[in-house]
Amino acid sequence: MKNKAITSRDIDFAKWYTDVVKAAHLATYSNVKGCIVFEPNGYAIWEKMQQVLDQKFKETGHQNVYMPLLIPENLLQKESDLIEGFAPEVAWVTMGGQKQLEEKMCIRPTSETLFSDYYSSVVTSYRDLPMKYNQWCSVLRWEKETRPFLRSREFLWQEGHTIHETQEEAEEETKTMLEVYRDLFENYLAIPVITGKKTEKEKFAGAEYTLTVEALMYNGISLQSATSHYFGQKFSRAYNISFLNRQNEQAYVYQTSWGASTRMIGALIMVHSDDNGLVLPPKIAPKQVILIPIGDSEDVKRKTDEIYQKLKNANISVTIDESEKSPGFKFAEAEVNGIPVRIEIGARDLKEKKITFARRDTREKMVEDETIDVVSYVKQLLEDIQNNLYHRAYERMQSLTYTCHDLEEVCNIMNTRPGFVKAMWCGDTECEMKMKEINGTKSRCILEKEKPIDDTCIVCGKKAKHLVVWGIQY
Amino acid sequence: MKNKAITSRDIDFAKWYTDVVKAAHLATYSNVKGCIVFEPNGYAIWEKMQQVLDQKFKETGHQNVYMPLLIPENLLQKESDLIEGFAPEVAWVTMGGQKQLEEKMCIRPTSETLFSDYYSSVVTSYRDLPMKYNQWCSVLRWEKETRPFLRSREFLWQEGHTIHETQEEAEEETKTMLEVYRDLFENYLAIPVITGKKTEKEKFAGAEYTLTVEALMYNGISLQSATSHYFGQKFSRAYNISFLNRQNEQAYVYQTSWGASTRMIGALIMVHSDDNGLVLPPKIAPKQVILIPIGDSEDVKRKTDEIYQKLKNANISVTIDESEKSPGFKFAEAEVNGIPVRIEIGARDLKEKKITFARRDTREKMVEDETIDVVSYVKQLLEDIQNNLYHRAYERMQSLTYTCHDLEEVCNIMNTRPGFVKAMWCGDTECEMKMKEINGTKSRCILEKEKPIDDTCIVCGKKAKHLVVWGIQY
Repeated sequence: MKNKAITSRDIDFAKWYTDVVKAAHLATYSNVKGCIVFEPNGYAIWEKMQQVLDQKFKETGHQNVYMPLLIPENLLQKESDLIEGFAPEVAWVTMGGQKQLEEKMCIRPTSETLFSDYYSSVVTSYRDLPMKYNQWCSVLRWEKETRPFLRSREFLWQEGHTIHETQEEAEEETKTMLEVYRDLFENYLAIPVITGKKTEKEKFAGAEYTLTVEALMYNGISLQSATSHYFGQKFSRAYNISFLNRQNEQAYVYQTSWGASTRMIGALIMVHSDDNGLVLPPKIAPKQVILIPIGDSEDVKRKTDEIYQKLKNANISVTIDESEKSPGFKFAEAEVNGIPVRIEIGARDLKEKKITFARRDTREKMVEDETIDVVSYVKQLLEDIQNNLYHRAYERMQSLTYTCHDLEEVCNIMNTRPGFVKAMWCGDTECEMKMKEINGTKSRCILEKEKPIDDTCIVCGKKAKHLVVWGIQY
Repeated sequence: MKNKAITSRDIDFAKWYTDVVKAAHLATYSNVKGCIVFEPNGYAIWEKMQQVLDQKFKETGHQNVYMPLLIPENLLQKESDLIEGFAPEVAWVTMGGQKQLEEKMCIRPTSETLFSDYYSSVVTSYRDLPMKYNQWCSVLRWEKETRPFLRSREFLWQEGHTIHETQEEAEEETKTMLEVYRDLFENYLAIPVITGKKTEKEKFAGAEYTLTVEALMYNGISLQSATSHYFGQKFSRAYNISFLNRQNEQAYVYQTSWGASTRMIGALIMVHSDDNGLVLPPKIAPKQVILIPIGDSEDVKRKTDEIYQKLKNANISVTIDESEKSPGFKFAEAEVNGIPVRIEIGARDLKEKKITFARRDTREKMVEDETIDVVSYVKQLLEDIQNNLYHRAYERMQSLTYTCHDLEEVCNIMNTRPGFVKAMWCGDTECEMKMKEINGTKSRCILEKEKPIDDTCIVCGKKAKHLVVWGIQY
């Protein structure tokens, strides 16, 4: 039996996606064009992601700060690549109160400019370095086409910005933060990823290079899921972030930035969820277990409370559905909301000394003895679900990862059952543009550690430089 | 010995305040006019406040959401009191990318309009009620004069917005949230407060009434520190938030909102801090204890690590200053940063089997036996500091709270040693305006539970309606 409010994902994936967002009450469109309302179920997932990341940031020596929302035009313009990259898509404030402003200001699309400006005013000596700051905030980009979580005018994110004494240290930071993101994806979101370097064309405006975390959705479309940028001295020269080094000379700092956003909620949906609604990995689920008492006998109530207390004391996030809806309705609601484990406690079951467990990932029901050690049983179940979700996604990614040696192969794949395509590339943007003609195929990242699969570029046939993963992107 | 970077608070309070903000690295002015950068030490205090409040919000049945940053002009205009109250001080976005917008949008100064618009689209039946949402975000008000934390164009806050089936329930919510704020102030920030109802003139634009938390700073100036508003059906009628009630009739919801902001950091500074810098109550201090090893002998290192581990395991927030600065410099820095307890571990002390403790509030040094139970000793010290800070502030507030029966008394007080003035009031705005002529004295709140101290209004001599607390405000 499938949820009637949700289109099948194999029939219309885009419709399925928005149906799940709506049915699970993750977000709704607002009356502000291109902006969404993060509803409690959606925001709670973001809070879990924040908790995991924030702890990892602090463990790796970062501190949180908060920079202004607005950027004066002249400040934005100091770094020319950045202004070229972002100017077409920022919102401009031109009036304060009733008055025209002397200088217009944009709402931050990202905060390199503000951090650079701040750092230039506070750094004087190598003793002040490194400075490793992060901020949690919303940013705004004037997108034309929007889709909840994946692309909306305003979204929530974190942006880390660090400055360092040496190139080595800054490059190390860039890699470290990429690994933090990979850890989040693989070990919490249960999403396998490919990581590597972006091509010149696809890197962040103003970066020397960009490292990226790329994930594959259920429908074979790629999602750029988090990025870590190495800036070298590009911003420090433009914004004059200089310091007295150990040789007592003025030098420019080496800089990084890295970010991940509420787009990750979109990835969670598109990797794990199904025709019955949301599916959440236990480690990121705001509620891991829901108890559904059936009927209102004293026995049922007592058993429900007993299990609730036990799970709560074991630090498992648990809730009881005590509403007046029917059990069937409650089961469906728990499913659509993606709660990993459901426990049904009914008078008839209890008479037979049984309790029913249901896992969301496989939708299996397990009838167990009432005397079971419920805490260790549920803990094991949560672990199994977490692992199963990862492996299911991993198997799918494997089955949708192709190795191609000519463009016809790429064409066939990208027009029928797209996924990640591994193919050699000469390094020319022209060849990248040719690939784009195949259903919008773009480079995802350069795989620097894997062995070449060919000597020549798949497009032009000249000597190949890099093994690249290609895909159709959101 | 006093910190040279800090002006004495008895000589120039305003200068002292900005000196402390700067010296403790709480915030700096940015190149964005009227906006500050929240530096790590300042932002960490906000994170502690958020933790305390967020937990209390969740315990009282609220959920977090996130609404858009922008409000289209027509949406803002639906509630006329609100637009009158806020229109002069909002920032307007008129361009998206390179294009002029068809309708301008303001950056939220507060989000009643967005929550109302959202609620009107999702509520259908009494079964959907109550809805009790909160959001953490930044808001923007185009202030002319700004001061870090107290008044800046952009600030961070939380805003709760709830809708209810009945008036009683909504009024109860308004009171409950006022008590949540009072609890935060008294039991965490160690700041005694006065609470009550705002006058018609001072209430929030669009509210039926406003409850407020008022605190008194070291210099006798009042600070409106958190507010809780009851809206009745004003917004629900303007935005059409209606539902089918238990009698199967369409009805309008009853609504509340309540908020507290980074202004509370300003209150913390102005109530507790001194000429040596920041003083923080232990319950809100990001770091409660700092260990300062003196010299680099093995004994010192071993003892430092031992104490660090013990305190950490006891869930006390502790840090070690392992920098290469001199001990004297480290002591001063720990003081200026307001860390409640400092532990000095030196080779000479250890030879005599002694350790030195210093408490920030009184600046006392205690030399104790090395064998002391350091965890319970520090716990007791933190508790003592928390209590001492509260009582010190309470005594001061008492000594600066006056009961007045004629305007000359008020004049004398407000022009020499201002504070809270209790006096009777007839209820007329005209009399409130007359009070304002006395050095800007404004009503803080109506004390509904205290006994009247007179029969007649202190200004006009006519029959008095309310006992009011008056003060000069930030």
